[in-house]
Amino acid sequence: MAKTTTSINNTLLTDFYELTMANGYFELGMKDEIAYFDMFFRSVPDEGGYAIVAGLEQLVEYIQELNFTDEDIEFLRSKNCFSEEFLEYLRTMEFCCDVWAVPEGTPVFPFEPLVTIRGPVIQAQLIETFLLLTINHQTLIATKANRMVRAANGKTLMEFGSRRAQGASAAVLGARAAFIGGAVGTACTIAERDFGIPALGTMAHSWVQSFDTEYEAFSKFAELYPDNCTLLVDTYDVLRSGVPTAIRVFQEKKPTKMGIRIDSGDMTYLSREARRMLDEAGFQDCIIVASNSFDEYIIRGVVNEGACIDAFGVGERLITAKSQPVFGGVYKLAAIEKDGEIVPKIKVSENPGKITNPGYKKLYRLFDKKNGRAIADYLALADEEAPDGTPFEIFDPVHVWKRKLVEDYECKELQVQIFDKGKLVYDLPELKDINAFCKKQIEMLWSEIKRFDNPQSYYVDLSQKLWDLKQDLLKSRGQVK
Amino acid sequence: MAKTTTSINNTLLTDFYELTMANGYFELGMKDEIAYFDMFFRSVPDEGGYAIVAGLEQLVEYIQELNFTDEDIEFLRSKNCFSEEFLEYLRTMEFCCDVWAVPEGTPVFPFEPLVTIRGPVIQAQLIETFLLLTINHQTLIATKANRMVRAANGKTLMEFGSRRAQGASAAVLGARAAFIGGAVGTACTIAERDFGIPALGTMAHSWVQSFDTEYEAFSKFAELYPDNCTLLVDTYDVLRSGVPTAIRVFQEKKPTKMGIRIDSGDMTYLSREARRMLDEAGFQDCIIVASNSFDEYIIRGVVNEGACIDAFGVGERLITAKSQPVFGGVYKLAAIEKDGEIVPKIKVSENPGKITNPGYKKLYRLFDKKNGRAIADYLALADEEAPDGTPFEIFDPVHVWKRKLVEDYECKELQVQIFDKGKLVYDLPELKDINAFCKKQIEMLWSEIKRFDNPQSYYVDLSQKLWDLKQDLLKSRGQVK
Repeated sequence: MAKTTTSINNTLLTDFYELTMANGYFELGMKDEIAYFDMFFRSVPDEGGYAIVAGLEQLVEYIQELNFTDEDIEFLRSKNCFSEEFLEYLRTMEFCCDVWAVPEGTPVFPFEPLVTIRGPVIQAQLIETFLLLTINHQTLIATKANRMVRAANGKTLMEFGSRRAQGASAAVLGARAAFIGGAVGTACTIAERDFGIPALGTMAHSWVQSFDTEYEAFSKFAELYPDNCTLLVDTYDVLRSGVPTAIRVFQEKKPTKMGIRIDSGDMTYLSREARRMLDEAGFQDCIIVASNSFDEYIIRGVVNEGACIDAFGVGERLITAKSQPVFGGVYKLAAIEKDGEIVPKIKVSENPGKITNPGYKKLYRLFDKKNGRAIADYLALADEEAPDGTPFEIFDPVHVWKRKLVEDYECKELQVQIFDKGKLVYDLPELKDINAFCKKQIEMLWSEIKRFDNPQSYYVDLSQKLWDLKQDLLKSRGQVK
Repeated sequence: MAKTTTSINNTLLTDFYELTMANGYFELGMKDEIAYFDMFFRSVPDEGGYAIVAGLEQLVEYIQELNFTDEDIEFLRSKNCFSEEFLEYLRTMEFCCDVWAVPEGTPVFPFEPLVTIRGPVIQAQLIETFLLLTINHQTLIATKANRMVRAANGKTLMEFGSRRAQGASAAVLGARAAFIGGAVGTACTIAERDFGIPALGTMAHSWVQSFDTEYEAFSKFAELYPDNCTLLVDTYDVLRSGVPTAIRVFQEKKPTKMGIRIDSGDMTYLSREARRMLDEAGFQDCIIVASNSFDEYIIRGVVNEGACIDAFGVGERLITAKSQPVFGGVYKLAAIEKDGEIVPKIKVSENPGKITNPGYKKLYRLFDKKNGRAIADYLALADEEAPDGTPFEIFDPVHVWKRKLVEDYECKELQVQIFDKGKLVYDLPELKDINAFCKKQIEMLWSEIKRFDNPQSYYVDLSQKLWDLKQDLLKSRGQVK
């Protein structure tokens, strides 16, 4: 993996309470207590039907570089609240947890464990902050990009938002996540060097302003870049100056690859008029790029109005997921081991949506054999048999009378093992393969789930055994202790 | 400066079009053409009255580490669109621009140049992306934090959002920016190691869940941390279990520093009841920390309702500036030099708010000598005399009939020089000094500017000469070229 903005030692990028708790577990002789944590989310941003999980590669990098340096230890010592024995434990600590995760690019749904950790409670807690940060951030952007890709309806989507990103890693890894979600390229150069995402871009308004005339600016550019001559046509006036000047330059310089970019004004009107003018001049193969405060709704709007836009460059509303800039993934204790037995744990809340699914679990996706479509996801305890293709009844975990017999299905376990007792056992896929995988997985969803407004809820059902366990724990935990 | 998430070589964290343009300028013999760029913004997020500028230190780091490695050059060569001469120029390029900037922590207003760059057009363009990224991001978060600090009305504000930040640098540098804006600490450990921001935090729900009873969890913690015993009281039931158990543990273990943290439920009711119970038990000095989806409006609401909260821990709504997660700073060409003369440039737009202020300029703030309050900011061409204390008339640049005679004032130039022909000439202040400076500068603003709803617009006026120049350029540029 390339050295990137995240591949530095971020061991201390952890909430301070993880360390006070860790020191506590250590001092109480609980350092080898085994805990199970699940990372999951409770709702899809923008009221969408699904999210696209991303950010796992950076979690793997983080874990592989997990290491308290002498400087870190010195810093922690200066806080005057940790024992020397604990600091020595940290200094020599080797990560030895099991990690399972849903691969990047998979469509995922609320209350599913996207990542599950099993290991010494100190380690499992320590990685919480970074785990949430990377999965929350990249899942947010991949999900948003995928919405825009759907809106673009076959036209190209490009990520242009670095300058408005929330910091350097938001720019670079945001470009990565956008690519997973279906963007074809980015304006961010380093994202190509480090992740192979095509870096795109030709000129800014300042180029046009640096010359005495728009004609001079365009014709110099066409001489320099005959193979990639996309001219920015809105510095002065798109239809009265920019497009006619571009046409004149295309006629004179005959570049082999032509485009224009419109960065302001009414995109539907301007792109249609520009298309007409270009076509009349014989430049049917000149593409039109638009880049003006797009989000999925504006893209859908101009597409429906018949805008002649071949490629959308999207800035701040993608790189920050502006309409809802937080993916609310959480990390909750699911079980601990006592004398070799798994003891399920539950987090009770006044708010039913905040109650967790207890125990060490496995997550399955059931596909209809007839058409390949995903029918439902199924969450069971790890010691239960996986659905084996024989018909069985699933039921809604809240409205339990909603039942459905599943027949003629294929069952796929969604989480794969990433670390086995601290050893990386997963081959991280190439980014382009994640992009292709994502596209394919989304094709397996019913279109009712993909709509923007009021999408159908996808079923994430619990096994009877898991449901019973949850009810039992709720009953016993319902009392104040 | 400490090695942080941003202090790696981010030279290629630049939009690809900066490089295609740079190659163009190089090929056209324009590489030594001197350009002036201004970074400014057009509106304050959340319709606030002012922003707090931040992010300069990371721009300085970026510029100091600007350097195309052999790997970078090899990568650029593989794009097959740059000349070998240009690549060699990049490989040996040394930054030689002048940079002026408004110091971090200063309250700033729309259309003011926060950063001004003068230098070879290739270099001035190359740094655009990172300059915007760092100033946009940290200004956004510092501004948001300052709103929350105002809402907290003297109570403590703490930044707790790492897990929801948009990437690692958003977490760490977001904590930095929040501290500039007035937060007193952060949950993010690495932010203390690298920036000296106090890292805070004691326990999560998982600590409480790891023990058989809440009592055991609390009493073990009190034994471990008698000097910093803040107990999380909402795992089961705040008033029926959490607070009574905390009181019992305080009575038994007698920690020297006590607190409780409430993380869910109605903050006003729970904090008032908890306060009453603690006071009745004699624990008047036990502080109450609250951390439940706060933003400035919710903080203001619970403060007004009489909530007994001593410290607010704020997560996602601060670290992402959730209500408006983009600070829209832009970077625009203001002038070029031709034969030693400064030729002002303007960007025309159909939208009057998008028209730029041309020329090489200086920015002044006028303070009332009687009360120390800021009266107005004043933007003039660099070759004009600075206001020298003698009375003069300022006027609104849009509604020019709005005029005001300024008398008995002190004039302070807002930008300071950071780089002189590529050499760092600015002593970067300590973060705690930026925090103190910010606090002091805000005290110099009238309270009308600080209100959340419909704040008074602060005057940012142009000199007559600058205003005349702008009108002249608009007239001549109004025609299509």
